[in-house]
Order: sequence, then structure tokens, then C-alpha cells
Amino acid sequence: MTAQRVYLDYNASAPLLPQAREAMLSALALGANASSVHADGRAARRLVEQARRSVAALCGARAEHVVFTSGATEAANLLLSPEWRMGRAPLAMSRLYVASTEHPCIVSGGRFAAENVTVLPVHPDGLLDRDALSAALAGHDASAGLPLVAVQLANNETGVIQPVAEIAAIVKAAGGVLVVDAVQAAGRVKLDISAACGDFFILSSHKIGGPQGAGAVVGLSDLMMPVPLLRGGGQEKGHRAGTENVAAIAGFGAAAEIAAAGVAEADGLSSLRDRAEAAVSAVFPEAVIHGAASPRLANTLFFSIPGVKAETLQIALDLAGISTSAGSACSSGRVGPSHVLAAMGAGDNASALRVSLGHATAAEDVDRFAAALAAFADRLAGGNRAA
Amino acid sequence: MTAQRVYLDYNASAPLLPQAREAMLSALALGANASSVHADGRAARRLVEQARRSVAALCGARAEHVVFTSGATEAANLLLSPEWRMGRAPLAMSRLYVASTEHPCIVSGGRFAAENVTVLPVHPDGLLDRDALSAALAGHDASAGLPLVAVQLANNETGVIQPVAEIAAIVKAAGGVLVVDAVQAAGRVKLDISAACGDFFILSSHKIGGPQGAGAVVGLSDLMMPVPLLRGGGQEKGHRAGTENVAAIAGFGAAAEIAAAGVAEADGLSSLRDRAEAAVSAVFPEAVIHGAASPRLANTLFFSIPGVKAETLQIALDLAGISTSAGSACSSGRVGPSHVLAAMGAGDNASALRVSLGHATAAEDVDRFAAALAAFADRLAGGNRAA
Repeated sequence: MTAQRVYLDYNASAPLLPQAREAMLSALALGANASSVHADGRAARRLVEQARRSVAALCGARAEHVVFTSGATEAANLLLSPEWRMGRAPLAMSRLYVASTEHPCIVSGGRFAAENVTVLPVHPDGLLDRDALSAALAGHDASAGLPLVAVQLANNETGVIQPVAEIAAIVKAAGGVLVVDAVQAAGRVKLDISAACGDFFILSSHKIGGPQGAGAVVGLSDLMMPVPLLRGGGQEKGHRAGTENVAAIAGFGAAAEIAAAGVAEADGLSSLRDRAEAAVSAVFPEAVIHGAASPRLANTLFFSIPGVKAETLQIALDLAGISTSAGSACSSGRVGPSHVLAAMGAGDNASALRVSLGHATAAEDVDRFAAALAAFADRLAGGNRAA
Repeated sequence: MTAQRVYLDYNASAPLLPQAREAMLSALALGANASSVHADGRAARRLVEQARRSVAALCGARAEHVVFTSGATEAANLLLSPEWRMGRAPLAMSRLYVASTEHPCIVSGGRFAAENVTVLPVHPDGLLDRDALSAALAGHDASAGLPLVAVQLANNETGVIQPVAEIAAIVKAAGGVLVVDAVQAAGRVKLDISAACGDFFILSSHKIGGPQGAGAVVGLSDLMMPVPLLRGGGQEKGHRAGTENVAAIAGFGAAAEIAAAGVAEADGLSSLRDRAEAAVSAVFPEAVIHGAASPRLANTLFFSIPGVKAETLQIALDLAGISTSAGSACSSGRVGPSHVLAAMGAGDNASALRVSLGHATAAEDVDRFAAALAAFADRLAGGNRAA
């Protein structure tokens, strides 16, 4: 009999919460188009609007400022646009400023041409170099348009949490617009878009225990909005065409309710994370814990063992029934050096193993990880002895 | 006790097939990222690739030429791009040619500027004016790029089926690229992309009994591909960034298998559709059946009753527990004149009721529709007598 696998890769995709599953099943039973005006369509519409209120509440935002998308990547590509509108008047964003440790869907610049994207450095602790941000914005040529800045609230690999309020103050002082990628922070850090923490949040359903296939742009207002990325029907008040994915949106809403209620519990994950971290340091005293000097998500552990390729350890753990990640799961089957570690000065070929916990993680899971790590170390030592 | 509602709005969204629901539930139980390299991720990846083969088979295409998207609107916005690549070399499409009866996600022109979109007329029977297409393509300025043509295989409102092979011959003769919106045709008409019927098909999962939130671009090859619309991770071989919606894609695949097997059965719907049509003509002899002179989908009935607003009838039927549509459900709550009817010369304010059938439609459903229509006619006549 095979023991149940241990899933420690929540930052790639969290298992579906039972509440989100139930919400999806109810929506799937309806099977109507939320834009249809008949009773079946109106029932679907109610689920979408209920989810909109739940997602807004998670961010301290107003429901009417939530635009549902197919995920965070689409939300990023919607927001990272040089063309905006303020009401009906065109509004230009002439340059995009991003941190070097951003997720690929931000670093790629969305709809900006590569020559109009400025990549800003981070310190070795993973925190954005705010002096570099200030200097870049001071040099912004406002004649062509506003500066648009996009930063992560929390990094997907290291879990490092940026001081977004301070970054927002710099961006506001420069007359810029701030997009905050809150994908990994949601449910783990309290979100409040009204507290001068950014003009727009990006959220992803499946990172908080909702289904894949839903994400959102959440705005402080809708006075200014990017030109739509998906054109066609008038869904989402014209900001995003395409039939609403009612089941995914309903599941997203249910997960957002859990996330809003569960930030304190997420903090409780830190004791499990610390237990995993202690196991790493006990087995490999030379291990480097990335981002440990900075505020970090309570669920994330990202570490390198000198002389050990992260992929090798990832495969060994996988064979032991434990799912972890060597870098982010953002491209099919690709496991390569981490651009986040390179940006933090760890070298271009640095690799690290990510262990990320979540709602269903138990102490026993961490213990199985620790045991598998110890077994891996024994094999390494045995190999060395045999040599 | 309320009688079960009768759902006759399949062209807006088809109820979920049991097989698609099962495939989704299996995928939701996995809860991993299909791009993760561990065993959980690989299991998710297998479901995505199995669905890719099923969707390809529905179109007579190769699995490696299927790109999954969040739906048909995203697929259209991906394909309707002025910027393409042939391998690594840039390739320009300088003008988009669309029929006036296309779905809003095609008529809106995707990533083309409005001044680079030519809208072509249709005949009163709903068929594209092929002479106008030939003339437009003869006048195409090839110095700036290739002509891109996008036409529906079957119309969402009328069900009218275009002679795509003949259209493709015209487009090929002019050196153009043809995108075929097969959203409404899939599962109702045999699709075969290899039979010189177009370079790309657009498909939607939820129109064939799969879940909302999945669609596809299916190519005859991938020699030339549009510049990605969603940038970020390397999913879908770099053609579409964003975490794969494994559950929706798995459900889409299951529905595609049913659709491929069920085209003959879909033909059987024509007897039910004809029964509904006969009921309309019996109760309202003056009713106009749109597209009746052309090849039509077997499941679709679109009709106007002179002097009766389609919205009025739609609401009356809704109150009687029958879901139909007055126009397409492509924008939230909006019910207005049909641009399809206007293009067919029925006038700018023409409205019509759409009755569309599908896998779960029974003769009893059609009879309840006929009875409700007769009751509506009685009330109309009563109103007239009272006046």
C-alpha cells in the first residue's frame, strides 16, 4: 500500500478547499450563462456577484471595483498596459517600473514594449531598493505619460514581504500608479487596499484554495482603468469580455471568505514552517535560508544546500512521496536557475528548494519531509564514503 | 411544487455533460499545478494532454497544434493579431476581414485597430457575400502584410452555416490566413481542419457541454502563430502564459469526446427543432424564421413575430419556466436589437427569439415551449379583444 503523498507546494497551487468545491458544484449544477436574462442566467449572475463581494471584502475594497479574469497572469496583462482611460478620456502610462524579483507575468511587462520597462534592483535580503525606485521615478519623463509601478506584496519563491505602504508613498509622491501583485500574500497577510497600499491588487483564486481559472483585478476605484485586453461582449462592465466562468468565480469567492477569516491561522503555519526550517538546518548546517533576514510569509521556506542541486533534492523528495518545488512552476516542465535568487545576488546559477505550506498541512507532513531530507543526507554521505 | 424549468438556451451555454463533470471532479481532487514537475503536477499534466488529444480529434487536428485558452473570446483575441511570428521571424497581418454577422469577440477586431478592420456584408439569407470578400481581398495592399480573414462556421443567433470550404478557397487564392469560429458548430457539424477548411479553429468548452472557462485555438499547423496575448510563464509552448485550468480543460476534453461521437445525434435534434418551429408557425402564421433559406444548425430556431417584441416573449416564457434568449448573451443584462438581423437586412431595430436545443432536450420540453407560446398568443388576443 502506498502512503498518501505529502503536498508542500502551496505556492504553486493550493489544494481546493472543501468550501470552494461545494460552491463550484452548486454553480456547475446551474449550467447557465451569467449574462443571460432568464431565471437560470440570473441565478448564475447572483453567484458571480456574491463572489465579487467576497473578493472585495478580502481586500477591503468595494465590490464594484473587482474585475474577474481567468487568473493572475491575465490580470497582470490587463493592468500592465500603456493605454488607459479616465472615463472616456485616454490616459497614457509611458513607462513600467518593476522589481527584478517579480513573477514572470509582471517582469514580462504585459503590453509594454521591452524598451519601456525599467527593472529595479533588490537588496540581497530581497527587499526592493527604494532609493533606486525614487531615483528612477525622479528621472521619469512625464511628458509622454504617467509612471506605472508594479511590485509584489510577497514573493512566490522566497516569501519575502515588501514594505508596500512605503513603496506606495514613493510612487504617489512621483504621481505614479501602483499595481500590487498580492497573489501570494492573499490569505496570508491582511490586505487593505484603502490604506494607501496601492491602486490595484492582483489576486489568484488557486493560490488561496479556490479553483484554477479565476483571478481578479481589484481597484481602489475605477476612475482610471486600463484599455481592455479581451475585447468582445460587454461583460465585467466592459473591462473584460468573455463568458464568466461562474463555477471558478464562485469557488474563488468561497476561498476568499476563508482567506479573509483565516489570516490569523495562516500565521499559525509559521510554527510548522519553522519546524521544517529547523530540520533543514539540523541535517545541513551549511544550508542557506533565503529571505530569512526579511519579513517573510509564514508558510514559505526557500533554501539552498551548498554543493547540492535543488533539482536533485526535489526529485529525491518526490520519489519519497513529497511534492516540493525547485523554483516556480510557471512554465511547463522547466526547472532552471532562479531569477529571484540571481536578483538577490546569489549568482546566475543559484538554485533552491521551495517548501510551501497551507490549509491542509499537518505536523506529520513536516515530519515526513524532515525524515526524507535526513535519508537524502545519509545517501549523500554514503556516496561520499563509498568514493 | 414548481415544475422543473425547461432550458432552451444551449447556444448561450450548454448544461454540463455528466462525463465532463466527472472529468472535472477527478481533476479538482488532484489540486496541483500542471507545470509542477513532481508526481502531483505530472498527474495534472497528463489530464491536460489527454484533453488536448480529445480536442484535436474533434477537429481532425494534431494535439500539438492545440493551444488552450480561458475561452473563445480569449482565443479570438489571441488570433486576431496584426503581429505574428513564423518561427522566430516576424510576420505581419495588415488587415482583418470579418463578416458583419460575426460574434462580438470577432467583430470587435481583437488586437487590430478599428481602421484596419474591414466588415464584409452578408446576404439576407445570412450567407457571406463571397463576391464582396473576393473584391476586398483583391484590393488588399500586401506590401504591409497578409490579409487575415475571420468567419463563423455557424452563427450563434440564426444557426446559419457558412460554406467555409468555398470561403477558404477564396482566402487561399488571395494568399490570406483564415480563422474559423467553430464555437457553435462544434458537436453539431463535423469539423475537419485538414480538409482545407481554414488555418485555425476557435472552440469553446461550454458550448459543447463542457465547463465554462476553457477554449482553444486549434491550428492546421504551428508554422505561423500570433504573438502571445498573455505574457508571463512558458505554458502552452509559450503561446499562452498562465497556470493551466486543469479541471476546466479536463472537462473540455471529455465534452470534446462526446461531441466528436455525437454529431450524428445532434442531427437528430432537427426533428425537435422542426417541432418547435412548427409550433411557432401554427400559433403565429406570420412569424418569420430567420436563416430558414440557408443551411442551418439542427438545434437552432431564431424567429420574429411581427408586432411582438422578442423581449416581451422572452420574459413571458421565462415566467412560464422556459429559458430562451432574445439575442445573444454576450453582455451583462443587455438585450437590444440584433446586429446579426440588422446585417441580414431586417432593419436596425429587429429583434427575435432564439430557441436552442441540446443534449438533454426532450420532446416534452418542446411541447412545454409550444404550450407557453400558445398561452402567450391567447393573452395577446385577449388583450386585443379587451381593447
